Parts: sequence; C-alpha cells; structure tokens
Amino acid sequence: MKIKYELLKKEKNTKARLGILKTNHGDFETPMFMPVGTLANVKTLTPEELKEMSSAVILANTYHLWLRPGEDIVNQAGGLHKFMNYDGPILTDCGGFQVFSLVKNKKDITEEGVHFKNYLNGDKLFLTPELSIQIQNKLDSDIAMSFDECPPASADYDYLKNSVERTLRWAKRGKAVHANENQSLFGIIQGGPIEDLRAYSAKETVKMDFDGYSIGGVANDGESKEDMYKAIDYSIPYIPDDKPRYLMGVGDPIDIIEGTIRGIDMFDCVLPTRLARHGNAFTRHGKINLKNAKYKKDFTPIEECDCYTCKNYTKAYLRHLVVCNEVLGGRLLSIHNIRFLIRLTEELREAIKNDCLLEYKKEFIDKYENKN
Amino acid sequence: MKIKYELLKKEKNTKARLGILKTNHGDFETPMFMPVGTLANVKTLTPEELKEMSSAVILANTYHLWLRPGEDIVNQAGGLHKFMNYDGPILTDCGGFQVFSLVKNKKDITEEGVHFKNYLNGDKLFLTPELSIQIQNKLDSDIAMSFDECPPASADYDYLKNSVERTLRWAKRGKAVHANENQSLFGIIQGGPIEDLRAYSAKETVKMDFDGYSIGGVANDGESKEDMYKAIDYSIPYIPDDKPRYLMGVGDPIDIIEGTIRGIDMFDCVLPTRLARHGNAFTRHGKINLKNAKYKKDFTPIEECDCYTCKNYTKAYLRHLVVCNEVLGGRLLSIHNIRFLIRLTEELREAIKNDCLLEYKKEFIDKYENKN
Repeated sequence: MKIKYELLKKEKNTKARLGILKTNHGDFETPMFMPVGTLANVKTLTPEELKEMSSAVILANTYHLWLRPGEDIVNQAGGLHKFMNYDGPILTDCGGFQVFSLVKNKKDITEEGVHFKNYLNGDKLFLTPELSIQIQNKLDSDIAMSFDECPPASADYDYLKNSVERTLRWAKRGKAVHANENQSLFGIIQGGPIEDLRAYSAKETVKMDFDGYSIGGVANDGESKEDMYKAIDYSIPYIPDDKPRYLMGVGDPIDIIEGTIRGIDMFDCVLPTRLARHGNAFTRHGKINLKNAKYKKDFTPIEECDCYTCKNYTKAYLRHLVVCNEVLGGRLLSIHNIRFLIRLTEELREAIKNDCLLEYKKEFIDKYENKN
Repeated sequence: MKIKYELLKKEKNTKARLGILKTNHGDFETPMFMPVGTLANVKTLTPEELKEMSSAVILANTYHLWLRPGEDIVNQAGGLHKFMNYDGPILTDCGGFQVFSLVKNKKDITEEGVHFKNYLNGDKLFLTPELSIQIQNKLDSDIAMSFDECPPASADYDYLKNSVERTLRWAKRGKAVHANENQSLFGIIQGGPIEDLRAYSAKETVKMDFDGYSIGGVANDGESKEDMYKAIDYSIPYIPDDKPRYLMGVGDPIDIIEGTIRGIDMFDCVLPTRLARHGNAFTRHGKINLKNAKYKKDFTPIEECDCYTCKNYTKAYLRHLVVCNEVLGGRLLSIHNIRFLIRLTEELREAIKNDCLLEYKKEFIDKYENKN
C-alpha cells in the first residue's frame, strides 16, 4: 500500500499545515523531523532509543547502502526494516546529493546518468535514474525519491534551467521502472532560488502525479537562508494540498520553523548527530559546546528537557565523556539533539493547532538567538 | 558501611565457592565478572544496559579518573555513582597497573612512590600509596584497592621478593590514610608464580586484615596461563573463608572457569569491550570475527543467547556495522560479549550449587575449543 497524507488543519496566519502521514509501518503527525540513518542505523543509536524520543520516521541513504552492504543483501534480509530491526517508516533518498558531490568533471554528468568514483576503493560507478529507483525498490523503504540533478549553489540561470528539465526527464524514467507496490515515490522540485524555474519544476513534477513532493537543492554549502526560503515559497503554491511536502537536508531549528511556516511537512538532517559527535548540544538558548571549560563543574543537565540524557546526566559528566572521546558522550548528545528537534516539531504542531505559530516563532528565536 | 561477604556453599570437588557480596549499592552473587568502566563509563554503554545484562558490579580506573576529570570534580559531583549516574556497586583499582606500564626507568620506582609522565600531556606525575588511597576515597567507590608494585612477567626471584616486601609496606601506608567509612579496602597479593613468595605475601597481607584480597600480577603481557594458575593456587589457601577473593584483570572465559575452580570470587577485564571494538564476539564455539566475509548473508544471530543483540540483530547486520566502522556495531557486540561472561558466571554458580563444576568445565571447554 502507498502512503496517504491527511490534512488536519491549516494555520490561520501562515501556510503551515498540521497533517498525518499514514504508512505501512505506522502513522505520524506532520510537520516532523526525520533523523538520518545513513548506513542503516542512526549513528550510535538503537531503534528503541529512537522510539523513546518519539522519533517516528527515519531517512536512510541509498548511495551509501548501495555501496555497503549492497541492496541485494538488504533485500535478502527482507528489506531495510528487517535488516536493521526497525519497524517504523523509512524514507530513502535517491543518492543524487552524494553522487553530485563526488563528480570531478562536468562531462561525467550525462543525460543517461552520472559517472563517479567509489570513494571507498576508487572503482568507477555509474548511477542512473532507473538504477536509483531499482536500488530503492530492493531496499524496500516506505518512501523513495526520484533521482534528480543537484546543481551547485553557484549555478546560473541556464544551468538551473537545464537541471530542472533533466530532473523532469529523470523523474519520468524513474517512475516508469518503479516496481514496488508497497513503496511510495516522491518527485523532486529543483530550480534554485528562481521563481519561474521553481514554478515550472513544481507544476511539471506535479503533473506526473507522485505520492509526495520534495524541495531539493536547498542544502548546498554556501547557500543563503534567503535563497532557501525563496525556493520553498516559489514551489509550495503548485503542490496540491493532499500531498506531503518534504524539504531535503534541512535541520537547523530556525529553518525548521521557517520551513513549517512556509508549508513544509517533513525535514531531515544529519545535523543533530554530527553536532553531537563534535560535543555540541542544541539548547533553547542556542547551541553550546560541552568541551568548554566552564562546564567542568556544572552538575546540572544540558537544559530542562524530557530526554534520557537530560533526565540522567550532568554537563560535567557529558563534558568529561566528550573531552575523553568516549563514544557514550556522542551517543548521549545525539539523544538530546534529536529529541530537541522532535520536540520542536511537537511544539510547532501545537502552535498550528492553536493558530499561534508566529508568536511561537518569535519567542523561540528570541531565546535561541540569546535575545532574552 | 563496609562490604560483607557471605559464603553460601563450597563446591564438592573443587575449591569453588558460591557467595554473596553485600555492598552499600546492592548485593551480588559470586563468582561474578565485573565489566570495566575505565573513564566512568563502560565504553559505549549506559547503566541501564548493564543492568539489563545482569551486570551487578563494575570497575573504574583510578589512574584514568585521576587525570580526567580529576578526583575533586568526581567528589564534588557526589562521588562516582552520582557522577556517572550508576547506582550499583563500583570497585576502583589502585592505578598501579597503569603507572608501572608507563615507567621508563627503573630508578623512577622509589620507596616513596612512582614517578612517570602523564601520557596525555607529558607532565611529570608522582603516585604514592597514600595518594592512590586518597584519590579513591574521593572517588567514593564501594571497594578500593591498595597501591601495589606490579613486577613485569620477566621479573626474577629477587625482584619479585622485593616487590612483595614493598607491596606490604605500601599496603600498610595506604591503610593508615584510608579515611572513607563507606568504602572497603582490599589488600593485593603479589609474588609471581613462586610458591613461597605468594604464601608469604598472602599471610602478611591477611595479617593486616583487609575487607577482601586481590591476586595481582597475573594479567601481564607474556605471562603463561600456568603461571597464572600457580599464582592463584599458591595464594588462596591463606585467605580466610569469610573474605572475597578477586583475580585482577582476568576475563578470558576459560580463565574465569579455571579461576572459579581455584576459589576466585571476582574477575574483571576490558576484554569483552575491547574485542567488540575490533568486531569480535564470544560464542560457545569460540571467538568469531564479524568482519569475516562468510557472515555477509548470515541472517541469524551470533548464537542462541538471551542478550539484546542476539534477540534483535543478525550477523549480516552486525558485520555491515563493523565493516563500516559504525559505533553501533561495537556497542551491540559489547552487549553480547559482556552478557556472555556474565552468563558464564551464572552457569558457574549453578554448577557450584549442583556440585558439577568439573563436568561443566569439560563441556564448556570442549565446545569453546571446537572439540565438538
């Protein structure tokens, strides 16, 4: 069965939506943040821990799983859920983002697909729209992504226009070979921060009738927040109300708020786990780094928070673990950071229910940016 | 309050004992294996996970905690239990083993104490019997160790004799400054594999009336198993029945069985977590390395086992995590390996109850060494 999105409520003063996404592995409310389980695990964490922090859906990386352990092994295990012992919904990306970051030469990007080298052993590899879908079919995630061309943040109008056109052709090719009745497929909208390109990309992608729509090309290095907001604003009006909208690769708390206000339902990012590995924690008053000497004798939790870490450990202990490179430190901070973003989406849903999203935003940002 | 050891039963055909050790942080049956929490955490694991695998007591390293975060910070946190959020019994070692492995020059070992360099920053440090105890007092573990001289495996008779004498003088000095009414103190028996030295060391240490007795100098690199068994056999007869006996640094499954047969109550070792970090798992049929290609498509658990890892994950998935250097792999293998040793001690206690320890040993070893 395919996913089903149900729109529960629109917020009065913004484009934000409260919804529910029904999948074969459980339903979850949106807006929602999805932790990233690159290699079929959210780094350092078990599925039980994800559930404990009310994480309802995760993302896994097609590119990484294609290389290791390979989609056939995952398929023989019974699909990603069985392979990693996780029974909640899983979304896979298309591999495009990773592959395009590995392309050395413009001529390696062809109409047929993308040539690049396996970063693990130097082998020549070739990823096509069809192969991306076939790999995802075998991984058997709940939601798959169409293979798109990810233009660099520096791309000019013509480059972006060609990317949009190619992404549409690739979406069609991928859809044609998609052959997993239990897997839904999203189309990806490209077009940079350019209004007419986003509009065109959105309209044409929607015509193909996907199960949901992603806004891509917004998580490139060097891209401004303004450009990200434009990409959303120019795409959203053309996506039908009854389909979920997913902003790819975005997990900064303020971006999640801004994306929600603009009508986004789903977010994903490696940020909470990556920050954790470097000793950083989200707090309501901005990010902190536990390595800071001022936490040496701070026997209070990171902050007032309902996560396992804050209920049980002090900043002094976390600092000790982080300074000593003890893995448990990154693990405990990952729990807090993911819970922080999940809790943020819970509060956003509450604010949508109460039609007070703009007030919530102001209060959150004032505190987060240390203005009060 | 000090610990109290209660002898429940002696096995009929060996020197093995079933006992119970009562501490301020809970009681546990012996023989028992203690996982090592070097830096105030058992690497990658939470206290809840240790409890789930029926781990009842852990060891923490005085030397490492002295350097980071420092005993004063732990003390200000309210002691090790509060610092690391672990409410079970904790034993600390004396630091001797680590310090002696860092000594570059024989003249750095003096009657007053041991000079060595901080491996983290090159600072000159000096550890004395008094300081070791004072640090442990502040860490506030349930059980502290006297500071001993650890001779190398290659030491000759005279070296060993001098070590025994010095260890006795150091034990006396440490006991004199020990000032934590809630912390018990063990004496350490040295003397290598030499019968008269072990006997002398044991008798003189017992005269000082410690709360328990450790057999040291048995976990050196290059030491033979025969020498380890001799060290135990020559020490045990002089330790009173009403005191616990702890074999320091030993965690190989067969050594735990052999130690138990010889009258040991407590074991500790980094082996289960260290093996796990390198992708190895204990099994009833010997150790296996999950990196082995033959596990690529092995969708069965490590073995029939009641641990979280074996109940939930396949060898193919564990192999994938280990090959990709995903921390969760080492974490899941640590859970299995520690549970393996804890379960071994549970079975040893059962065999003692049923007076069938030698049969149990034969059956275990035949399988473990792949003889059946």
